[in-house]
Amino acid sequence: MEGRQVDARTRQLVEQPCRVTMAGYVNPMEDAAAERRKSTFNPDELAAFLHGGEDKLARRDELIKLLSSQPWGDKTHRYFYNREQEYVGGLKSAVGIWKKMREERLPIEDGIAMRGLANFPGGLELHIGMFIPTLLSQGTPEQQAKWLPMCNRLQIIGTYAQTELGHGTFVRGLQTVAVYDEASKEFVVHSPSLESIKWWPGGLGKTATHVVLMARLFTKGKDYGPHAFVVQIRDLDTHLPLPGIMVGDIGPKMGFNSVDNGFLKFDHMRIPRDAMLMRFAQVNEDGQYIPPPPDNQKAAYATMVYVRATIVRDSGDFLSRAVTIATRYAAVRRQTTSKLGEPELQVLDYDNVQQTLMPLLSRAYSLIFMGRSMMAMYESFDAARARGDFAVLPELHALSSGLKALCTDIAASGIETCRRTCGGHGYMLASGLPTLFNSYVQNVTWEGENSVMYLQTARYLIKSALAVQAGKPLTGSAAYLATAAQQAGVKCGVATPGDWRTSSHALAGLTRVAAQLTAQAAQVLLRAAGGRVAFDGDAWNASTVDLIRAAKAHIALYLHQNFVDCVEAAAGQRSITAPVAAALRAVVSLHGVVLLVEASGDLLEGGYCSGRQVAMLREQQRALVRELRPNALALVDSFGIPDFQLNSALGRKDGNVYQALLDSARISPLNATQEGPAWEPVLKPLLSPIARSRL
Amino acid sequence: MEGRQVDARTRQLVEQPCRVTMAGYVNPMEDAAAERRKSTFNPDELAAFLHGGEDKLARRDELIKLLSSQPWGDKTHRYFYNREQEYVGGLKSAVGIWKKMREERLPIEDGIAMRGLANFPGGLELHIGMFIPTLLSQGTPEQQAKWLPMCNRLQIIGTYAQTELGHGTFVRGLQTVAVYDEASKEFVVHSPSLESIKWWPGGLGKTATHVVLMARLFTKGKDYGPHAFVVQIRDLDTHLPLPGIMVGDIGPKMGFNSVDNGFLKFDHMRIPRDAMLMRFAQVNEDGQYIPPPPDNQKAAYATMVYVRATIVRDSGDFLSRAVTIATRYAAVRRQTTSKLGEPELQVLDYDNVQQTLMPLLSRAYSLIFMGRSMMAMYESFDAARARGDFAVLPELHALSSGLKALCTDIAASGIETCRRTCGGHGYMLASGLPTLFNSYVQNVTWEGENSVMYLQTARYLIKSALAVQAGKPLTGSAAYLATAAQQAGVKCGVATPGDWRTSSHALAGLTRVAAQLTAQAAQVLLRAAGGRVAFDGDAWNASTVDLIRAAKAHIALYLHQNFVDCVEAAAGQRSITAPVAAALRAVVSLHGVVLLVEASGDLLEGGYCSGRQVAMLREQQRALVRELRPNALALVDSFGIPDFQLNSALGRKDGNVYQALLDSARISPLNATQEGPAWEPVLKPLLSPIARSRL
Ligand SMILES: Cc1cc2nc3c(=O)[nH]c(=O)nc-3n(C[C@H](O)[C@H](O)[C@H](O)COP(=O)(O)OP(=O)(O)OC[C@H]3O[C@@H](n4cnc5c(N)ncnc54)[C@H](O)[C@@H]3O)c2cc1C
Ligand SMILES: Cc1cc2nc3c(=O)[nH]c(=O)nc-3n(C[C@H](O)[C@H](O)[C@H](O)COP(=O)(O)OP(=O)(O)OC[C@H]3O[C@@H](n4cnc5c(N)ncnc54)[C@H](O)[C@@H]3O)c2cc1C
Repeated sequence: MEGRQVDARTRQLVEQPCRVTMAGYVNPMEDAAAERRKSTFNPDELAAFLHGGEDKLARRDELIKLLSSQPWGDKTHRYFYNREQEYVGGLKSAVGIWKKMREERLPIEDGIAMRGLANFPGGLELHIGMFIPTLLSQGTPEQQAKWLPMCNRLQIIGTYAQTELGHGTFVRGLQTVAVYDEASKEFVVHSPSLESIKWWPGGLGKTATHVVLMARLFTKGKDYGPHAFVVQIRDLDTHLPLPGIMVGDIGPKMGFNSVDNGFLKFDHMRIPRDAMLMRFAQVNEDGQYIPPPPDNQKAAYATMVYVRATIVRDSGDFLSRAVTIATRYAAVRRQTTSKLGEPELQVLDYDNVQQTLMPLLSRAYSLIFMGRSMMAMYESFDAARARGDFAVLPELHALSSGLKALCTDIAASGIETCRRTCGGHGYMLASGLPTLFNSYVQNVTWEGENSVMYLQTARYLIKSALAVQAGKPLTGSAAYLATAAQQAGVKCGVATPGDWRTSSHALAGLTRVAAQLTAQAAQVLLRAAGGRVAFDGDAWNASTVDLIRAAKAHIALYLHQNFVDCVEAAAGQRSITAPVAAALRAVVSLHGVVLLVEASGDLLEGGYCSGRQVAMLREQQRALVRELRPNALALVDSFGIPDFQLNSALGRKDGNVYQALLDSARISPLNATQEGPAWEPVLKPLLSPIARSRL
Repeated sequence: MEGRQVDARTRQLVEQPCRVTMAGYVNPMEDAAAERRKSTFNPDELAAFLHGGEDKLARRDELIKLLSSQPWGDKTHRYFYNREQEYVGGLKSAVGIWKKMREERLPIEDGIAMRGLANFPGGLELHIGMFIPTLLSQGTPEQQAKWLPMCNRLQIIGTYAQTELGHGTFVRGLQTVAVYDEASKEFVVHSPSLESIKWWPGGLGKTATHVVLMARLFTKGKDYGPHAFVVQIRDLDTHLPLPGIMVGDIGPKMGFNSVDNGFLKFDHMRIPRDAMLMRFAQVNEDGQYIPPPPDNQKAAYATMVYVRATIVRDSGDFLSRAVTIATRYAAVRRQTTSKLGEPELQVLDYDNVQQTLMPLLSRAYSLIFMGRSMMAMYESFDAARARGDFAVLPELHALSSGLKALCTDIAASGIETCRRTCGGHGYMLASGLPTLFNSYVQNVTWEGENSVMYLQTARYLIKSALAVQAGKPLTGSAAYLATAAQQAGVKCGVATPGDWRTSSHALAGLTRVAAQLTAQAAQVLLRAAGGRVAFDGDAWNASTVDLIRAAKAHIALYLHQNFVDCVEAAAGQRSITAPVAAALRAVVSLHGVVLLVEASGDLLEGGYCSGRQVAMLREQQRALVRELRPNALALVDSFGIPDFQLNSALGRKDGNVYQALLDSARISPLNATQEGPAWEPVLKPLLSPIARSRL
């Protein structure tokens, strides 16, 4: 269209009409700038606090420069890749970062930061996240000495093969066997059925040369349950599967397609005895099974706690990306006016949009603080463990399971909700939101399906409730159950909407709900069980809805308590300035109110609140959202997510959203030719000259 | 791995261990068969009723044969297509069906059925769904005579270009102008800004030769608002954009990528005067604007009602597919046992899974019946309209808007919930669920963003409430508001959990909630408006959350009432046998209870229910789910969705899910070579021979 000649008269003809239709137009970049002038605090301050200091942010900017100068670091075409390009691209990115780290001897934090910024998972995820850690935790010193250097130089690439077509949640039910052969001093690994085929391990499809295999260990005819083995699966010279191995990619998924999750079947494959990771359990040459010390089980739990803690940490990161995109876009998107020709309303000013986004913003903050606390808890446990002290493990296990579930539920549904507030443009990959959702949502399933995770927490709650009944003292996160019975008659003391802002009222309400739902669940379970509680079996399985409700309420309380504590601690220690503290306190209050609104049916059912108090809750939610509105952009800017990481046409900081959408469309492969790929094979024969001659 | 030699001793060694790990194994196909034996009615009967007779089902089977014998009808590789293959494939499918219809002179129902079965939207969606219908409704007889024959022979392909980068919801704010030039008797069409670029029209990117363009009409310097024009955009010989046109594909989306949604920019393009669709408004040669008769506006509403009615109709179809997949899989998926070696539990027997899926099943049925009623209402309106009777239009507009929103919300979130109950395998495209979700979810946005749709219904409700206050009589769906004030003191009469089964109690509860939320919304609005209600502007925009809540409650009531009525009518007219009626009545009861559980906070807040009654509600939900459990597969079989249409490894009727997953993985393009596409460029240089020599 460029360079087209248009006569002056025609130009003049449309001039006035165009002025009319353009009246009231506001440039989105001006909107973005104007929004930022409204804030009551400096987002750079809060960003620095959240990221651990200005130097961390400065370092991150350097890493962005480094990444974007690499051929594998460019993100311009990311949303156009086909599966093969995604797979190769993800691997190039992962390998590229790995090499940079080694070449320039960068610290591990730089690597983590670069992986986050690149946001391009690849065939090394499980090598880094599970293969090496399992060697570290379950390998003997000799085994570690043998494998780890090769792992670090990427001379071998590993993954973690536990799940089978037929078994995910129930690991004890795995069907793959590893049978000790006393004659040859080897194990024979075999997949006895279709359902026993390993399915899902990341990087297994086309990348990994080795796996940590979870298989049922048999020696002397006895089943010792799942144990871990290091098994080479591909020839290192040809990358072809070794004899006895069938391996491949499981096919395309909802997201995460740069990772080659794979399948794996064994046909009577022999592996050496020392392929078994023998730090804890052992099989000696004679085929004697030497059981692990009791700490083994605890060590396994500790690993799970760690992985779940990292999932909790990441949930806030991912949700805050979505909230950043949706809030920035809602601030510059204008739609509808009652007076044609005047500026339309920023969609962030519609009640429905702001009462969707501001609560999600509060949740993102809450998850971020929860992630920090969860990692800190893990680290303090780790220190205690080094001294042989496992005392907090049951509590930590229950918490990390429930938090894994609730935080990923909140993040996953929050991302999709953010996407929807963007209207049509949120459906475009260029917005960043569909990919964010489709890749994030796996977190509700892997590393413990969320329902199953809530049930872990529920188990702890029911045990705690039984302990109270038995007159035993309670400590830890469920300690409030000890006084729940006495509290049952107490009524909510809220007299004005503003009362709901105070943490004491919010926490009291959430505590009440958690106690009430735990009591309800215990009752349902007892009734189903005919009075004798078991933590699995028919009665348990028939009560899981109530158990899950209780677990959610308990974790929601925990989440809010943590948020309150963290912000108060930061304010008390003056880690944040007064204006930042004021803004954050409003976010905390909103968070509490949002959780309470969600629980209002329970607050009423238990007789704790009156209808009027619940109405005040909604009123207070509205008031807090209005109060936070001027800080909307400052609060998302404070998440400190750089444009490079977001890679979103709608979420760019400068607000130039429409230009970004158009720029992205122009380079879409479908636009490589003007007539498109269907012209020759489909359309030309149809729109045939003969037919057209009749036009 | 085939043909591998394994010695007898090795085979023997693993035999017993394999027997141990395979103990308790149940073949999923046997599970599926056993499940079907439990049902209390014959699903073929119900399927025939839902599909309008056995002959319809038989015809459908013939059409499946026809489709699957076409090269473009094969679905085996559907989940592996890249964008270009999707686009070309979708178009081939659409054109293929079109041609078959013409060649074999098939009735229109066959075409609709084939399009549904193929489930492969393509570049013709808008040609069929909007371009032709707009010509029919807004073109003069001459315009129709000119364009329609070419449309029918696919000599031209059209789309509907309304939305711009900057404007979707607010159509009056479009910036594209069509200015009448009295000198040349032409219109000049021009896009004055980046934001005015047309964005989203389906098929516009690379397929369409023509568009119905919505542009602001100017003549004699005056703005007459958006009007429709037929504009040719591509050369029919070369398919290249005409001078003055910039057009292309907007790029990849969350789903629906076989459709080439496009962008379009005009640079002072001249089009003839008769390009304007002039059935209603006209511009004569002298540039005089002849306004449309008042019925024009109504006709436009009627078209919207029609399109929304079809969205309502489809919602049940799509949700029932997801429910079919998830329920069938949950019936054959076994996971976890407390006694290793015994059969594990079918996951459909976990409380959390069945209390997720059975309610969604009831919703799918409700949406299906709602879709039938909605289409019937539209048809009866259409007949009245032919007689010039538009009386029901306001009611129908309010209903179809709210139903569009609620039904698509229910279906979209229901599909994703179904996906999650499938655990890890639900994340695979082969399950069918990710694609179903990603392509369905656009329905919450297009043809009226859902929040905006609810607000249409809310407007009707508030008007109705004001009418009551003004002492005017009410008819139609909101008639219950007339007596709401008198009813406000009445308490729920439920005394036992079983009482909640009866429609009268369920409907009374839902009516109460709708009335209460409407009153609340009116109050919030009045307060914000300082007593004077307006249906747009600041006060309205600040009250939309409450307005939307009211609209949802109103529509939920309507949905349930319709479900009750339809099933009772079918039972009363003996269109269904007694066993089918009994099963469906339980589904209806569950539907009511599920809606009430959702609204329990409101039931309590308004003082209608006691805490005990709400507890009974949950108890009754549990009881109904248990009661329906034996009919789970029969009820999904009754949806009558053939495997060909579902295209789901997990949803296949025979239960052979694991084999289907493996079969699908084997043909994944990433498995084209054993070593995969990253071996040569990335992995080989890394896992270098020198490094390996040290192994
Ligand atoms: C993207 C992705 C990556 C993965 N990567 C790996 C990997 O690298 N290595 C690996 O080994 N595995 C991996 N997995 C597998 C993952 O660990 C499992 O999918 C996960 O553990 C869930 O198990 P499942 O799929 O068998 O679900 P199932 O257990 O089959 O769950 C199905 C349904 O049954 C319900 N259910 C099952 N058991 C119970 C119970 N006891 N009580 C109540 N409800 C129950 C669940 O709530 C769910 O609704 C991955 C999965 C995904 C999606
Ligand atoms: C897959 C797909 C296909 C499409 N196909 C076509 C097509 O063929 N032809 C065509 O012309 N268009 C098409 N569209 C465009 C579609 O019609 C618009 O996306 C839709 O109308 C929503 O408008 P929007 O995107 O401008 O959202 P916006 O109006 O920008 O909405 C953004 C946000 O603002 C809120 N909001 C906006 N206005 C109000 C209000 N008045 N009150 C309260 N809240 C408000 C919304 O709730 C939403 O959260 C398509 C869109 C999609 C996603």
